Amino acid sequence: MHFRPYDIIATKRDGRAHEREEIDYFIAEYSKGRIPDYQVSAWLMACFLNGLDEQETFYLTDAMLHSGNIVDLSSIKQPKVDKHSTGGVGDKVSLVLAPAAAACGVVVPMTSGRGLGFSGGTLDKLESIPGFNVNLSEKAFVRVLEEVGYAMTGQTDTLAPADRKLYALRDVTGTVENISLITASILSKKVAEGADSIVMDVKTGSGAFIKTLDGSRKLASSLMKTARLLGKRVSCVISSMDQPLGSTVGNSLEVIESVACLRGEGPGDLRELVTLLGGYMLMQARLVDDVEAGVEKIERVLNDGSAFERFMHSVECQGGDVSSIEDTGNLPHARFSEQVYGESTGFVNSMNTELIGVAAIYLGAGRFTKDDRIDPATGITVHRKIGDRVGRRDALVTLHYNDDGDVKKAAELVQHAYTIGPEEPPRFNLILEVCG
Amino acid sequence: MHFRPYDIIATKRDGRAHEREEIDYFIAEYSKGRIPDYQVSAWLMACFLNGLDEQETFYLTDAMLHSGNIVDLSSIKQPKVDKHSTGGVGDKVSLVLAPAAAACGVVVPMTSGRGLGFSGGTLDKLESIPGFNVNLSEKAFVRVLEEVGYAMTGQTDTLAPADRKLYALRDVTGTVENISLITASILSKKVAEGADSIVMDVKTGSGAFIKTLDGSRKLASSLMKTARLLGKRVSCVISSMDQPLGSTVGNSLEVIESVACLRGEGPGDLRELVTLLGGYMLMQARLVDDVEAGVEKIERVLNDGSAFERFMHSVECQGGDVSSIEDTGNLPHARFSEQVYGESTGFVNSMNTELIGVAAIYLGAGRFTKDDRIDPATGITVHRKIGDRVGRRDALVTLHYNDDGDVKKAAELVQHAYTIGPEEPPRFNLILEVCG
Repeated sequence: MHFRPYDIIATKRDGRAHEREEIDYFIAEYSKGRIPDYQVSAWLMACFLNGLDEQETFYLTDAMLHSGNIVDLSSIKQPKVDKHSTGGVGDKVSLVLAPAAAACGVVVPMTSGRGLGFSGGTLDKLESIPGFNVNLSEKAFVRVLEEVGYAMTGQTDTLAPADRKLYALRDVTGTVENISLITASILSKKVAEGADSIVMDVKTGSGAFIKTLDGSRKLASSLMKTARLLGKRVSCVISSMDQPLGSTVGNSLEVIESVACLRGEGPGDLRELVTLLGGYMLMQARLVDDVEAGVEKIERVLNDGSAFERFMHSVECQGGDVSSIEDTGNLPHARFSEQVYGESTGFVNSMNTELIGVAAIYLGAGRFTKDDRIDPATGITVHRKIGDRVGRRDALVTLHYNDDGDVKKAAELVQHAYTIGPEEPPRFNLILEVCG
Repeated sequence: MHFRPYDIIATKRDGRAHEREEIDYFIAEYSKGRIPDYQVSAWLMACFLNGLDEQETFYLTDAMLHSGNIVDLSSIKQPKVDKHSTGGVGDKVSLVLAPAAAACGVVVPMTSGRGLGFSGGTLDKLESIPGFNVNLSEKAFVRVLEEVGYAMTGQTDTLAPADRKLYALRDVTGTVENISLITASILSKKVAEGADSIVMDVKTGSGAFIKTLDGSRKLASSLMKTARLLGKRVSCVISSMDQPLGSTVGNSLEVIESVACLRGEGPGDLRELVTLLGGYMLMQARLVDDVEAGVEKIERVLNDGSAFERFMHSVECQGGDVSSIEDTGNLPHARFSEQVYGESTGFVNSMNTELIGVAAIYLGAGRFTKDDRIDPATGITVHRKIGDRVGRRDALVTLHYNDDGDVKKAAELVQHAYTIGPEEPPRFNLILEVCG
């Protein structure tokens, strides 16, 4: 069927709903370079302001999904479940969760992204392991999956290419933060990578892209409804990003913390989130009857070394230096460190977690623009989190940096990020809601 | 001052008002090709949906105005008043009004456009006069103005170039029909051409771009407020386009009708609108004390041949074939004609005037796309208008066409355009409102 791009723009501009055929046409033609960016960006702004309903969101996701290949995982008979996070500060869950779930018998086909802005990216973290290759071909991806039970790679050119084009355009036209567009972007990629079902970690709060619980609930609801229409099962955990996850922010620092967690150690909040998300993955894989049983199984593989073994196998299969994991002293380390102290004493009442993420970028751990280079050794160790007591001589964080790091700016941002008061704040809750 | 285009888009997306500096920056940078179309189209859609307030509309108009040259008419001491029409079907007012006003002592620096879609364009009409040159340089424009008292030309590259770029983008992104964007487009061009004041013919109804009286009132109000902020005086006449103006639609047909009007003949509605708009022009030029006196003066120059004389002088000065005006039999004439009859008898109750305009395009008188070629000889003579009785043997219109004309499609459209009923409708009112 033939449509005019102009009419499609006008339909959404006037607040009318799109037919499936219109969206299919628009996305397919845009992918082929037959509709110019300036028409698509006008349409995106109309979508942003006038919204897409459930059906339209499903049509859009499906059209983006079918703009490229869907990975064929039919050779793998085990249940295939993936996890996706909407991104945060110190979020190293994937590094621990994927091998743990694999050790329990789930196959985890995971494509990840890079950090941009205050939010970190799994690919950058993995690349702090010398030699680790995150650019697997589809064939290599399936081979690692078969051998290790999980594989981690970047988005290939053939996977939902419409999403890559659209995301780049949204990024420069102020049309990123829309529930329907976010839903379509996440699900088109995740379904294209071949998983049967997906567990979503929807981040909320000061260190997440969606700052309010209400907004995160809406995204969770949209993800679940759209997934259902696509015939995929999705569970959502809404977790707080009002403070960094774990105690580290920065690439090799987070790998070191992840290795600790994979050895049954590491910070409690990271372990709590990993085991909960893992419990849902096992339930979706029908390997357990309830989440509690799934959580227990994940705890077991973290404690008995089998999750760590999977991780080592993965590092080996993807070309990484195994010795740097056996002794994390061999991972990149920054030459300098500096402690940041609080300006007052009392209790940490709140943290502007986005600012902690931005401070890490100033040290070299992240990117302001797509072309920035990352220094894997740099980052922040967080000593004080919400509810912790802060005395005169208690460092809030330690900054790790090399010659290029703007340590002054980073220290300033960290001090701005902390609110310290005389009263002990209410207990911090990591897990806010679960649904599905 | 430096801004990020992204932030400017986000400001309007979030419904906040722009600072003057933001708009100046955005328009200046876009004019210089330093902001890509895809960011501007997202901003235009945000403007369309969230609106621009009075101040922002003024800032935008002023920024567009200053994107190019302002014609220097300081060598001309007489009052300089222009007329602008928002476009319609059979609207040949400029061809009669400009020479009539000039004959009364007003200098009329008029830049006009071409027809696109159902609406005709003054430049196309003038070009049906063999040899008539509508592409005057700024120097030639001023020379003709000095010699004849009026001059008609197309928009040069140096006149409000931001408007040309923005209009081309709005045209393909569904962002044309917005009061503020229309206001800025009209006024930036009109003020740049050097007039002291402007009389606006705001068309409303089925043959206009704005179909409702309410919409036209809003445009008139926006034009007057913005002009006041620019320090220019503007009067608005809201006139009905619920039927074609005069009895002809098509280029040489409209020149013939205009010549009749310039000789004191021609259809009453055309003369009524010309004299009223002319009355306002004379009043703005302070050549008369009230509109009635202005109307009388215009009537006089139409009756005594002095308006016609000006027209002849202009044709001569702009390279046109004077003999084709002395004897309009020498203007292009179509080879074929066909009459279209009503499907029922009674009274013409209403006309979908846009359809009449589209029928004329099918005959060759207009353009569907910018690259279409016009056949100046083709068009429609309208025999029956609102309130007229239609008997079995009364033709509604005559279609004039050459070999390329799709006369079948045109006839169909004309029949669809007419609503004929047994009851006599209320009297048609051409002039709906005047303000300023």
